[in-house]
Amino acid sequence: MKNKIVIAVDVMGGDKSPGVVIEGIELFQKQHKVANLYFKLFGKKSEIESRVEGRFAKANIEYEIIDAPNVVLPDDKPSLVIRNKKDSSMYMAVVAIKNGEADAMVSGGNTGALMVVSRFVLGMLANINRPAAITVLPKIEGQFAILDLGANTECSSEFLVQFSIMGTAFARAVMMVDNPSVALLNIGSETNKGKDSLKEAFISLSQNRDMINFDGYIEPDSLIHSSIDVVVTDGFTGNILLKSAEGVFDMLKDTIRKALKSYFFPISSLISKYRISKEMSRFDPALRNGAILIGLNGIVVKSHGKSDARFFANAIKVAYYAVHNDINSHIVNSTEEII
Amino acid sequence: MKNKIVIAVDVMGGDKSPGVVIEGIELFQKQHKVANLYFKLFGKKSEIESRVEGRFAKANIEYEIIDAPNVVLPDDKPSLVIRNKKDSSMYMAVVAIKNGEADAMVSGGNTGALMVVSRFVLGMLANINRPAAITVLPKIEGQFAILDLGANTECSSEFLVQFSIMGTAFARAVMMVDNPSVALLNIGSETNKGKDSLKEAFISLSQNRDMINFDGYIEPDSLIHSSIDVVVTDGFTGNILLKSAEGVFDMLKDTIRKALKSYFFPISSLISKYRISKEMSRFDPALRNGAILIGLNGIVVKSHGKSDARFFANAIKVAYYAVHNDINSHIVNSTEEII
Repeated sequence: MKNKIVIAVDVMGGDKSPGVVIEGIELFQKQHKVANLYFKLFGKKSEIESRVEGRFAKANIEYEIIDAPNVVLPDDKPSLVIRNKKDSSMYMAVVAIKNGEADAMVSGGNTGALMVVSRFVLGMLANINRPAAITVLPKIEGQFAILDLGANTECSSEFLVQFSIMGTAFARAVMMVDNPSVALLNIGSETNKGKDSLKEAFISLSQNRDMINFDGYIEPDSLIHSSIDVVVTDGFTGNILLKSAEGVFDMLKDTIRKALKSYFFPISSLISKYRISKEMSRFDPALRNGAILIGLNGIVVKSHGKSDARFFANAIKVAYYAVHNDINSHIVNSTEEII
Repeated sequence: MKNKIVIAVDVMGGDKSPGVVIEGIELFQKQHKVANLYFKLFGKKSEIESRVEGRFAKANIEYEIIDAPNVVLPDDKPSLVIRNKKDSSMYMAVVAIKNGEADAMVSGGNTGALMVVSRFVLGMLANINRPAAITVLPKIEGQFAILDLGANTECSSEFLVQFSIMGTAFARAVMMVDNPSVALLNIGSETNKGKDSLKEAFISLSQNRDMINFDGYIEPDSLIHSSIDVVVTDGFTGNILLKSAEGVFDMLKDTIRKALKSYFFPISSLISKYRISKEMSRFDPALRNGAILIGLNGIVVKSHGKSDARFFANAIKVAYYAVHNDINSHIVNSTEEII
């Protein structure tokens, strides 16, 4: 398996597992036809075997199944998982990274448990205290990375500075931006606005402008017109932004659908529908699924729990490119430069 | 002036004052033709006089101009305004409420100063500690009120409980909902999610379900499908939600515009454009402008500083109906019942 990227998959994680997870792997391989990829499937062997047999061979997917008798449930307490569910698919898939048997893992399971297990098993990169969830979202022109999306409800200024470093490394490694601009999410652009943690991080980042391309505060409504590459915030605020955006997106999709439900102008409605859905495809949440839990000493990708195969396929893509572009070396190098 | 509703207007507040403010008053009266309304215009008399002369008489607007020689600037410190700018249009308009010379005031000026001046001059309603900014936003079906939108960056659980009471009173008085359902904005619906202040407010509100129709936690993406009437959050989070929604709305409007910029199907594009913009009109931010600073012993309405006449006209509408429906008595009665 030298020269192969090995991805460990928690086949039992997520609302529609194992079906959607297996379909997602198949879909990824159909879409990307990656030659140097090997899957380690963690879960109940008997359940998985019958579902993948034949099917994966046909799709040219190289894999093995590792039997994990236990499953992490959506409301399992993280501390309990560490104590009593070392034989779960999630736990075992994370351990595979630790043991050098996998380069990354993907799970659609219990977010809190995934966070705590990953941190406990893998530990953190040097100079980083806490993992943060990072993903890429669209702007009017281009896209931006945002972290944290929910791993840390409240964040000190030190965390926000570390997130800025990790976000910069992520933008370089995954978004291919040489000198990414970083901004702190706030409710005003004046320096006296916002929480104390933001004000302190603002000062600290301003003093490190030679290392981080810091652009000050950004508000969500000006963000979409801006040239900012990385938006830094605490996990509560990031999660609210993400879900507010999803909510408005859904609402407007519904509104457009109603507007174009035409009995009188069927052709014009059809043409418009086609053109709008083509333009809107770049906002498609399925193509944005998969948040890296960045800062860990290993690559762990969280897929949306309610996702279908298209979502899961994209989470695998995120894991694949994070390994391929060696994102963690970028972070380690950046932190060494700055801290 | 008995039986008339008197609205004090800070004519000098906002980026495009006094022009936009004067146009806004004119537009409101054109749209609503309210008979029992009287405007007190606070600002530089010489500047205002020449602009309204003839014009307001023609539009049947009853008014007087009260000369205020000073102006609150966008970056004036609130404490400084209280000490040194008692002769400003904003300050004098708030004092008019205090002295019983006006029933409400509207300003598009410096939010922080407006907050602090209002609290200092008017004081709070009984059992309420801090004012909160409240407005109405659209859902897929109907609308919901949300507070706080930015008056209080961080909030204790006591504040969140008081906001729930004020939001309930607002929904009764302004949205005409008899038994409004209230939810706390959070990043999950599980009881162990979110900040401590939220968890404490959750317990307190759960114990007062006979008084407040408390529905637990709500996430922004499920909110738009929900039957929730009042969403309660701290000012930082509320402001992020509002601006995220505005940002996504702008981005999708831009996307639709691009999609329908047709060279080949001009008719179908035109028809679709018309139908979509008709459906989308209910999201029009101009028709949603005007946040009440609720909890004060008087009615103060904040208009967006960057607004045009349509925005300002709507802020006047909010003030008018808040007086007309006697929103503060609703709050006082509710708090007496609950606290």
